[in-house]
Amino acid sequence: MSNKDTAPHDDKITRKPFPNSKKIYLQGQIHPQIKVAMREIYLSDTKNSISGKSRPNEPITVYDSSGPYTDSSKEISVHKGLERIREQWILERGDVEQLDNFSSEYCRERLQDKSLNHMRFKHLKMPLRAKKGQHVTQLHYAKKGIITPEMEYIAIRENQRIEEITSIRKQHKGEHFGAAIPERITPEFVRSEVARGRAVIPSNINHPESEPMILGRNFLVKINANIGNSATTSSIEEEVEKAVWACRWGADNIMDLSTGKNIHETREWIIRNSPVPVGTVPIYQALEKANGVAEDLNWEIFRDTLIEQAEQGVDYFTIHAGVLLRYIPMTVKRVTGIVSRGGSIMAKWCLAHHKESFLYTHFEGICEILKSYDVAISLGDGLRPGSIADANDEAQFAELETLGELTQIARKHDVQCFIEGPGHVPMHMIKENIEKQIEVCDEAPFYTLGPLTTDIAPGYDHITSGIGAAMIGWYGCAMLCYVTPKEHLGLPNKEDVRVGVITYKIAAHAADLAKGHPGAQHRDNALSMARFEFRWQDQFNLGLDPERALEYHDETLPADGAKVAHFCSMCGPKFCSMKISQEVRDFVAENDIVDKGLIAKGMKEKSKEFKKMGSEVYL
Amino acid sequence: MSNKDTAPHDDKITRKPFPNSKKIYLQGQIHPQIKVAMREIYLSDTKNSISGKSRPNEPITVYDSSGPYTDSSKEISVHKGLERIREQWILERGDVEQLDNFSSEYCRERLQDKSLNHMRFKHLKMPLRAKKGQHVTQLHYAKKGIITPEMEYIAIRENQRIEEITSIRKQHKGEHFGAAIPERITPEFVRSEVARGRAVIPSNINHPESEPMILGRNFLVKINANIGNSATTSSIEEEVEKAVWACRWGADNIMDLSTGKNIHETREWIIRNSPVPVGTVPIYQALEKANGVAEDLNWEIFRDTLIEQAEQGVDYFTIHAGVLLRYIPMTVKRVTGIVSRGGSIMAKWCLAHHKESFLYTHFEGICEILKSYDVAISLGDGLRPGSIADANDEAQFAELETLGELTQIARKHDVQCFIEGPGHVPMHMIKENIEKQIEVCDEAPFYTLGPLTTDIAPGYDHITSGIGAAMIGWYGCAMLCYVTPKEHLGLPNKEDVRVGVITYKIAAHAADLAKGHPGAQHRDNALSMARFEFRWQDQFNLGLDPERALEYHDETLPADGAKVAHFCSMCGPKFCSMKISQEVRDFVAENDIVDKGLIAKGMKEKSKEFKKMGSEVYL
Repeated sequence: MSNKDTAPHDDKITRKPFPNSKKIYLQGQIHPQIKVAMREIYLSDTKNSISGKSRPNEPITVYDSSGPYTDSSKEISVHKGLERIREQWILERGDVEQLDNFSSEYCRERLQDKSLNHMRFKHLKMPLRAKKGQHVTQLHYAKKGIITPEMEYIAIRENQRIEEITSIRKQHKGEHFGAAIPERITPEFVRSEVARGRAVIPSNINHPESEPMILGRNFLVKINANIGNSATTSSIEEEVEKAVWACRWGADNIMDLSTGKNIHETREWIIRNSPVPVGTVPIYQALEKANGVAEDLNWEIFRDTLIEQAEQGVDYFTIHAGVLLRYIPMTVKRVTGIVSRGGSIMAKWCLAHHKESFLYTHFEGICEILKSYDVAISLGDGLRPGSIADANDEAQFAELETLGELTQIARKHDVQCFIEGPGHVPMHMIKENIEKQIEVCDEAPFYTLGPLTTDIAPGYDHITSGIGAAMIGWYGCAMLCYVTPKEHLGLPNKEDVRVGVITYKIAAHAADLAKGHPGAQHRDNALSMARFEFRWQDQFNLGLDPERALEYHDETLPADGAKVAHFCSMCGPKFCSMKISQEVRDFVAENDIVDKGLIAKGMKEKSKEFKKMGSEVYL
Repeated sequence: MSNKDTAPHDDKITRKPFPNSKKIYLQGQIHPQIKVAMREIYLSDTKNSISGKSRPNEPITVYDSSGPYTDSSKEISVHKGLERIREQWILERGDVEQLDNFSSEYCRERLQDKSLNHMRFKHLKMPLRAKKGQHVTQLHYAKKGIITPEMEYIAIRENQRIEEITSIRKQHKGEHFGAAIPERITPEFVRSEVARGRAVIPSNINHPESEPMILGRNFLVKINANIGNSATTSSIEEEVEKAVWACRWGADNIMDLSTGKNIHETREWIIRNSPVPVGTVPIYQALEKANGVAEDLNWEIFRDTLIEQAEQGVDYFTIHAGVLLRYIPMTVKRVTGIVSRGGSIMAKWCLAHHKESFLYTHFEGICEILKSYDVAISLGDGLRPGSIADANDEAQFAELETLGELTQIARKHDVQCFIEGPGHVPMHMIKENIEKQIEVCDEAPFYTLGPLTTDIAPGYDHITSGIGAAMIGWYGCAMLCYVTPKEHLGLPNKEDVRVGVITYKIAAHAADLAKGHPGAQHRDNALSMARFEFRWQDQFNLGLDPERALEYHDETLPADGAKVAHFCSMCGPKFCSMKISQEVRDFVAENDIVDKGLIAKGMKEKSKEFKKMGSEVYL
């Protein structure tokens, strides 16, 4: 037994709050019991270098996916799991019941296996399930006109307190792609988007620890971080730490893609300690149960796996139900064939049995399970392109048509549904891809992996894909699955997760700016003002990765004095454009020559005076 | 005297060839004396895992900016400088003369200063200059219908031997933005684009060491790497090494932005050892000569600086001649004022003197100097936006109008001219920016810094800007000025230069794919085929940074066996989609069921057989 297979240690889990930041909780109005977690960043004063006067700067509130891990007032133990903030909301709806035991056979077997005791999460609760005949999904409530606490939570969260800050929202002179984001996100708007099927709130009733978040093109673009061990590497503790680390840096959502041993136990630890929704690809575990032989998979194994994971609290399942027998030969002439793991497993199954996969033939049965727990379905793109040469080809778009059909079936069952997309797509073909998805899948949210815009940079695929991700986010993609620098090469470590997440936060935020989300630009403005005023610490703290920014700054100018210096190492004091620019601004402002017409008059009189001021006013 | 100020050492300069690669030289047809340097990457054989047969793979030829540094057959000494490959071409045109001494007063002073001996480049040659009345620019020749050796070199280089490789060029179903790239780049096409002013070949007659390259939207997108020391840090040796390092990783061009002491000597070392064109911002050095007091700058100092640098061999000058007095008040209400160093220096000068800058009033004089050496002019965007809030504003576009006027003046003088652009621009405003530039500046090549698509990620601005760079490259931008992770925080070190260059190579290449450049996609295809066939070493070697890819792979699977393994650490052997996909392909191919119509028949018969093959065929 290796030390991979033991319970994680509390002291290994990152708990540091962000610098100069405080966790705040905003109360709901429709549902006063909800407390929306946000991060407030405190700023230093602006000092006028001529008058010497100071002016305070209002704190900036930002969206915060890090959960209680950055709240130093909360006690956290990975062994107990996070606070179950949604439990009362769920119970108060009166449509669920607590079971006496887990419904999955496999789950019960694992629980009885004493050899697993040392790695087991101890504080297991019995699962909830819909009462007979009930659909407990957010889509069901939305259709009925009910604004749930989850919906109000999301509305407050998405707005990021924009009323409290000076927002210079960039006018939308550029291209816009059909998104219709209101000036203010209301709970009713959230409800209507969910009811329309244009947005999804992944929120399993058995994952009450998660803070509600929404996927949809009229909301902030979300990002997903994949974690999970594989047969060749990594431990439970590492995976829990990666999950916490991912949320800390901004993952709105994580997927546990474990394929190694003990993935049932690993997943329990991750879900109980995850403040964000957790997705999985159940076919991976089902394949483990079939000893890795794709042909031996069947509906019974898969069904039991769905129930096992639904009762643990997985918030959405990726299911590759669109891989049809007749599409498989379309992949043969590709440069890279089938690159989706789930897709290739199902293709193999289909060929071996010469029939359509049980995912497709039992799709209604899948929906029956999912609506009893509010597990959302992420329709997997098993035939996505794995190279530039294969982008937007016949196989990809044929499968997409089938995903469109399945979307309608899921919606009929009140199952929340979104669609996965590629992969590898050159820039000029990205728009065609999402336009087709929006059309074929009736505006169901799109969730893409990148896409990578070139194949030639292994080691840098967070960047090749970050480009495509930003673009497709702008075009309306709801969630971006991150890619780390290790893509195609190895399993990401903690630092890779950090770089992958930050890269994708950048892509998502760039997309939010371009979409004109009302809660996006205030952070850019605050940071740029800090930059212009040489408030170095504020510049670091307002950034996506304050620690990295500080570290880079200190590499060249480590002295504390440099944090208040009115220049930096790049240009040095004499060449600082910001400094000169400030002088120009002060001069023009003081001489009241903002109006161009006045410049001739104002200037002539004052040019000598300005000359006297010289370049020394700021030193 | 610190060790910053000494001559560089030969043994410190990177000279390692790329793995499995050879430098090759292609001969010209019109000009048989030219030898176009390219890199040939050798690939391993493809092995059919069922039949055991091997099939060789043709080597791939790629564009190579690394110069002789990656040619192990060349002897190089930084003290002698690189081979002067263009010298004969220049002399044979018969329109230049060698001077007896340097024309710049400052240069002569420096040469007489014995205290600088220890840091001086020893093998100085006397400069060339146009004979009286001659214009020695590529634009002049192009207008006259002359195809120069530089033009043929470029045509061969841009094609990347596409006739020798199997190219699956992606059909252009997506959006295209007016670029008109032929299926094959001919010398005549190069000439016509230069004559039209739509392309520029930076090629100072005093920098014969440089390998010709072209900037224009109908060619491969180029990238620039900024190097140069500042008052607070770095040495001559470091800067030369950064330059070599930058070219190695793919910089098509470098800018020496030194602002510290001894920038004359530093520049000499850089130019003599640079296989790519070198640009500068002469106002930086002029300001040093004016002791850092912007108001004390004047045309005489500037003029002497232009001549000093032109005779050293600088290939293009950034000149901020578009900062007019009436534009300055437009920047006052900005969030970040003026962020260009050159722009702020000139703004300060204009305000102090209350008149238009000498760059504007002496623009014809500048052109007179430039056409005597074929220094191209890069019209600086002194009023570019420094934040999302300031993008595409009145000040920026007002200056652009002036740059358009100056473009026409430069062209009148046969001076090659291109235009600098921002900066910080959200995604939805990038297209407006370049469309305006193309219109106002009559299709002169655009050269942008990024643009950064958000302000909120200090420490990751290579990525925030890489997104914008890829997009604007696709829209037609000719050259992308890199941004390193240290942007806004500190001066880049060698590793930052590497990451910045690779990020920008990605952006440029993604743009080339999207533009449909005929020489772009073959490398993606070759790499993806290698990936699909588990030719790990080929995958690394075909990538932009082979060493980094290998290093990442080895972090999880260091064993040599893993380099031939038919799986990787991400999925492990059982879950490998590529492996399963290969099985599917082999099965479908062997059973001749590529035609969908045949699948029912073919499958039914063979499904049992496939089942027997199981998942073990590849292990």
